[in-house]
Amino acid sequence: MPSPVIVGIMGPDKQLDKAGPLAEQLGKAAAEAGWMVLTGGRSRGVMHAACTGAKSAGGTTIGIIPGDNTADISPAVDIPIITGMGSARDNINALSSTVLVAVGMGPGTSAEVSLALKCNKHCVLLGVGDQAAAHFSALAPSLVHIAGDVGAAVTHVKSVLPA
Amino acid sequence: MPSPVIVGIMGPDKQLDKAGPLAEQLGKAAAEAGWMVLTGGRSRGVMHAACTGAKSAGGTTIGIIPGDNTADISPAVDIPIITGMGSARDNINALSSTVLVAVGMGPGTSAEVSLALKCNKHCVLLGVGDQAAAHFSALAPSLVHIAGDVGAAVTHVKSVLPA
Amino acid sequence: MPSPVIVGIMGPDKQLDKAGPLAEQLGKAAAEAGWMVLTGGRSRGVMHAACTGAKSAGGTTIGIIPGDNTADISPAVDIPIITGMGSARDNINALSSTVLVAVGMGPGTSAEVSLALKCNKHCVLLGVGDQAAAHFSALAPSLVHIAGDVGAAVTHVKSVLPA
Amino acid sequence: MPSPVIVGIMGPDKQLDKAGPLAEQLGKAAAEAGWMVLTGGRSRGVMHAACTGAKSAGGTTIGIIPGDNTADISPAVDIPIITGMGSARDNINALSSTVLVAVGMGPGTSAEVSLALKCNKHCVLLGVGDQAAAHFSALAPSLVHIAGDVGAAVTHVKSVLPA
Repeated sequence: MPSPVIVGIMGPDKQLDKAGPLAEQLGKAAAEAGWMVLTGGRSRGVMHAACTGAKSAGGTTIGIIPGDNTADISPAVDIPIITGMGSARDNINALSSTVLVAVGMGPGTSAEVSLALKCNKHCVLLGVGDQAAAHFSALAPSLVHIAGDVGAAVTHVKSVLPA
Repeated sequence: MPSPVIVGIMGPDKQLDKAGPLAEQLGKAAAEAGWMVLTGGRSRGVMHAACTGAKSAGGTTIGIIPGDNTADISPAVDIPIITGMGSARDNINALSSTVLVAVGMGPGTSAEVSLALKCNKHCVLLGVGDQAAAHFSALAPSLVHIAGDVGAAVTHVKSVLPA
Repeated sequence: MPSPVIVGIMGPDKQLDKAGPLAEQLGKAAAEAGWMVLTGGRSRGVMHAACTGAKSAGGTTIGIIPGDNTADISPAVDIPIITGMGSARDNINALSSTVLVAVGMGPGTSAEVSLALKCNKHCVLLGVGDQAAAHFSALAPSLVHIAGDVGAAVTHVKSVLPA
Repeated sequence: MPSPVIVGIMGPDKQLDKAGPLAEQLGKAAAEAGWMVLTGGRSRGVMHAACTGAKSAGGTTIGIIPGDNTADISPAVDIPIITGMGSARDNINALSSTVLVAVGMGPGTSAEVSLALKCNKHCVLLGVGDQAAAHFSALAPSLVHIAGDVGAAVTHVKSVLPA
């Protein structure tokens, strides 16, 4: 079978403000486009919102869990991968995603975008703030795409998918 | 949604002899029982045989890939998780499996069974040889189950699943 | 014995420009202060320069190697730790360093600073550019310290060490 | 500088019986031979005993810590490497050791020996019991060496070191 498209949706686990609704909309749009959604898998923040959105449209959701047991897994995760390796799992998020979308920003999200750029993955930034956008654009101009809304983020993802 | 049952099927990547057909039958039986199948995900050995069997019965297959790219992934894997961490990913296999079944034996399989026992997972041993069976039974008598054929392996898995 | 002070010196592995000499001076200054130096351990870039500087002052150097063998280890590394896990090892760099200093910037360095901030480590930024400085300062204002030269970087490290 | 010889000393963290004194003697003998000693780094079991023995002879000790902070590190560890990845760090123990010696046996030790054999490292088994000896000897006959006492273990290590 052909390799699936897996869109990684990364973002903070707290202080969501606008990031929560954006992640939920993006998860739904990704599922509608036929893409799997991969997140950090826990039951809060952007991880949970993105998976919830994807499930509302019948999508498949993968959670790369930092802990070593099944506690704190989002109920919207179909496929829980238990890594037991804390933030070292951020590199699995980067490697396993066809394209990565950051919704909002924090230290963990910054790590995930950095690791994705290091392995030459395209990254779409949605609602991350001007400073993060400037930093990542400077690191890898050809791989970083700034999106103003969910529709633009989806368009950016489509534009970089393998034909 | 309830946590899915994920059966990890581990075994050598070469010198399959009887392990290949056993793994394929076991993958098929696992899918028929409604379980997901998790393997090391590469396109050969027990990994590939187990995923092939599961797909023949319409199951869902997860591959925990040791490399850092999409080369050498079994075409029978639905959900490829790219870890880029070589054999350190063996611990993810152990943690992510509800129950682990070893089909045949080699150094990598021995590591996976050992790590599963360390995190208190039940392990079923199928066609692993007397010495491996004696070693693991001595390490953790209450967690190790010796199966003489695929049917017995499935029965052992069912007996240890959470009610 | 008391826990040693381990200063992580992170930076790009190419396009060094000024970062190479700065890292070598910083490694030397760290060794003179009695600190161990931890780097990514390979035989080029800031990793190699920092270890070379530390050895010139009789320091102890630790290299956290991303590959899975002894090729490409800097000859200035005393203690090579072979992780075989690629960039997932960046989190070991963050966790194992008492304080982290970034000298220059790239995707890998950005990941290391991000991961260090996520685990609440102080980070000193030396010659990283205005955009990276603004990004990381916004992420964790109380943990990020901008240094204009090697002397200032050392002063910042001293100011945040446990008494 | 030439690559150092790093002898990994692995064993259970409890129920030591004879393994504790053996590990301490072996750590001391390794230091006297000029080798660094690498262990799992925690403050109990074979890890702690081996490091204590090595320090009694002025050796250098490396601890590859499974947790994510400095709690529970053996005071006999000179170089603590904080991995935060639980048992996935067992593969770092295997890759970073020139030769591995198991003193006593348990699930974690079994994982470490298995992983060492998978990456073609020589393993010396001391006081591991007949079943473990038979299992590992069957897995990799040319890499496994059974030692009856500490002196024999040291002789085995010397015999497989690079010239």
